Amino acid sequence: MNQKTEVLSLSRPVYIVGGAAIVGPKEKKGPLGDDFDKALEHLGPAKDSWENSEIEMTVEAVTTALNKAKISAEDLDLFCGGDLLNQICAANFTARKLKTPFLGLYNACATMAEGLLVCAAMIGSGLFQRGAVSASSHNATSERQYRFPTELGVQRPMTAQWTVTGAGAMVLDVESKENCPYISGGVIGRVVDLGVKDPNAMGAAMAPAAFDTIQRYFTYNGAYQPDDFDLILTGDLGSHGHSILLELCKREGIATGPQFQDSGMWIYSNKQDVHAGGSGAGCSASVWSTHLLHEVRKGKYKRILLVGTGALLSPITIQQGNSIPSIAHAVVVETGEVKPC
Amino acid sequence: MNQKTEVLSLSRPVYIVGGAAIVGPKEKKGPLGDDFDKALEHLGPAKDSWENSEIEMTVEAVTTALNKAKISAEDLDLFCGGDLLNQICAANFTARKLKTPFLGLYNACATMAEGLLVCAAMIGSGLFQRGAVSASSHNATSERQYRFPTELGVQRPMTAQWTVTGAGAMVLDVESKENCPYISGGVIGRVVDLGVKDPNAMGAAMAPAAFDTIQRYFTYNGAYQPDDFDLILTGDLGSHGHSILLELCKREGIATGPQFQDSGMWIYSNKQDVHAGGSGAGCSASVWSTHLLHEVRKGKYKRILLVGTGALLSPITIQQGNSIPSIAHAVVVETGEVKPC
Repeated sequence: MNQKTEVLSLSRPVYIVGGAAIVGPKEKKGPLGDDFDKALEHLGPAKDSWENSEIEMTVEAVTTALNKAKISAEDLDLFCGGDLLNQICAANFTARKLKTPFLGLYNACATMAEGLLVCAAMIGSGLFQRGAVSASSHNATSERQYRFPTELGVQRPMTAQWTVTGAGAMVLDVESKENCPYISGGVIGRVVDLGVKDPNAMGAAMAPAAFDTIQRYFTYNGAYQPDDFDLILTGDLGSHGHSILLELCKREGIATGPQFQDSGMWIYSNKQDVHAGGSGAGCSASVWSTHLLHEVRKGKYKRILLVGTGALLSPITIQQGNSIPSIAHAVVVETGEVKPC
Repeated sequence: MNQKTEVLSLSRPVYIVGGAAIVGPKEKKGPLGDDFDKALEHLGPAKDSWENSEIEMTVEAVTTALNKAKISAEDLDLFCGGDLLNQICAANFTARKLKTPFLGLYNACATMAEGLLVCAAMIGSGLFQRGAVSASSHNATSERQYRFPTELGVQRPMTAQWTVTGAGAMVLDVESKENCPYISGGVIGRVVDLGVKDPNAMGAAMAPAAFDTIQRYFTYNGAYQPDDFDLILTGDLGSHGHSILLELCKREGIATGPQFQDSGMWIYSNKQDVHAGGSGAGCSASVWSTHLLHEVRKGKYKRILLVGTGALLSPITIQQGNSIPSIAHAVVVETGEVKPC
C-alpha cells in the first residue's frame, strides 16, 4: 500500500495567464471597485431574469479573461465551472455558450478553489494544455433561493454575510505569458462539520474546515511554513469566521500573522452595511481573478495560499434540521523562478 | 500553440477495483435486480426524510464498494461525488461521513461518468493512488424537486423516463486486483443544446450530446472504431433518445450495431410502466457499478465505451423558458493486458 497523498504537488507549474470579474453595483462601490472589469448598473435584472443576469455575467467574465490571455474559447481543452444556483445553471449555460469540454463543479463558495485545483491538476499532469475556471453568485438569485423572498426584507443578524454579486474567471495554461504567477499545488479539502445549524453564521461553520485544510497543508507539504507566505487568503469566512480561524490556529500551534486575510473582509467597506462581510461563490472568484492578480503583478505578493471555503448546506437540509457540512480547498500560487521538482 | 486535446489518454491504467449499488424496490424488481447489492424495502422514507434515505443509500454504496475492494475510507486520496439534489447534498453528506478529500461534481445524469473521468485522470496521471466515485438519484426526491408534488400523481407522456432510485459507487486504484477492468481514457463532453424545451423528453435533449461525444471519440482516438467495442453504453437516453442517437449516427456515417445499448433501457422491463426507460444520476451509476462489472468479470465484454448523458436543466431555467443544455462524457473501460503507451 502506497503512502496516502495529502498535498497535491504538480510536476510542472500551471500558469494563470488571465483573469477577469464582472460584479454588481455594491461590489463596484467597495474598496476593490476599480479592480473589477465591469459592473452591472443595478442589481435588478438587466436581462429578463436575475438568473439570466448571472449567466450573462459569467459568460462575460470568462470571455474577458480569455481576451486578456489572447486565447480563444475554441483553443480551450476544458472549462471547469460552478455556482450557487440549483443545478449550477450559470455554469451550464456558460459552457453552452463557450462550446468547450465542460466539468461542472459544486463545492458552494469553495467552487473557484475546487476549479483551480481540478483544472491545474489536469494541465499540470500533462493531460491537457489550457483551461478556464469560473465561479459566480448573485445576491438576488441566492437570497431568494437560500433564504427568504427578496422583497420581504428580512432582518439579518450581525454574523450574517452579504452574498456577492460577481462572476470571476481565470485562464490556466501550461505555457507562461509575461511573468504570470503559477499554481504549484494545493490541498483537496475534507468535509468538516462541528454542528453549526445557523445559515446566518456560515463563517462559524466554515472556519473549522479552513483550519483543517491549513493544518493538513503545513503538516504535509514538507517545504513551507506559514511565514513563507506573503498571504494566506481565505475565501469568505467574514469577520466572524476569520476570528474563529485565528483562534483555532492559535490553540493548535499554527503561527498566525498579518498574512492571514479573508477575501470576504476585503470586498466591502464597513460602511456598506454588510455585517460580517462578503460571501458567495463569486466572492473569492471575483477578488482572486482581478484584485489579487493585479497585486501579484505589482510585486506585492510572491507566494500565496488561497483557501476557498464552502458551506455545503441546502435550504432543504437546513429545514430538515441538519447541520452545515463545510469544506475548504487550498491552492498554492507562486511567482518567479520555478523550482525543480 | 499546442494541438488541442480532444481525447483523454491516460499514461497508466486506472483499475476499477470495486463497485456497489443500493437501489429502490422498483429497480430490485427489474431485470437487473439480482445484481444490486441491496434494495430499500419501500420508497417512502426509511429514515425521517426521502433526502436522508438518499444520503444513506449513497453512504452505503460507497462503503460496500470499499469493503469489496478491501480498502478503508481512510486510505482514499479522494472522493468524487454528485447527485441531482439541489446543492448535491447526498454527495456532501456522504463526504462528511467518509472524511476523505472531496470534489463535488454536477453534470446531472452524466455525473458518474464525470466522476470516473476526474478521478481516473487524477490517479492515472500519478497525482493520487486511489479514489472513490459515486452518483445517486431518488425517485421521490427528484420528482418533487424537478416536476410536481409527488402526491399530485401527474400523468406523464410516453417520452418521459422514470427517475431511478439508486446510488452507485466505484473504487479506482492505480494497482490492479484480481483481473479488474481498467479505465484507459475518455472524452470530456461539450454542452450541446438543439432547443428541446420539454423536460418530459430529456432523451431527445441528450441524444445530440451523446452523438457529439461519440463522434469526437471516434474522430480523434486514433486507435479504435465502433466495431472494436463490445459495448457502447449510454447512460439514460431511454428508448426515445436511443433511437434518436442511432439516427444521428446513421446520418453522419458512424456505423452502429447491437453493441449500442442504453443503461436506461436495461434497468426496467417493459411491464414496469416506466414509459421510455430509466433516468437519473443513479441509473448509470447503479447499472455500471454492479451489473456491468459482473458481466465484464464473466468475460462478456472486453472493451466498453461508457457514455454518461446529462440534461443540465433546472426547474427555474425551464420555468423561464430556456431550452435544455445537455452533455455526455465518455469513459473507455478495457480488460486484459495493458498496452504500452
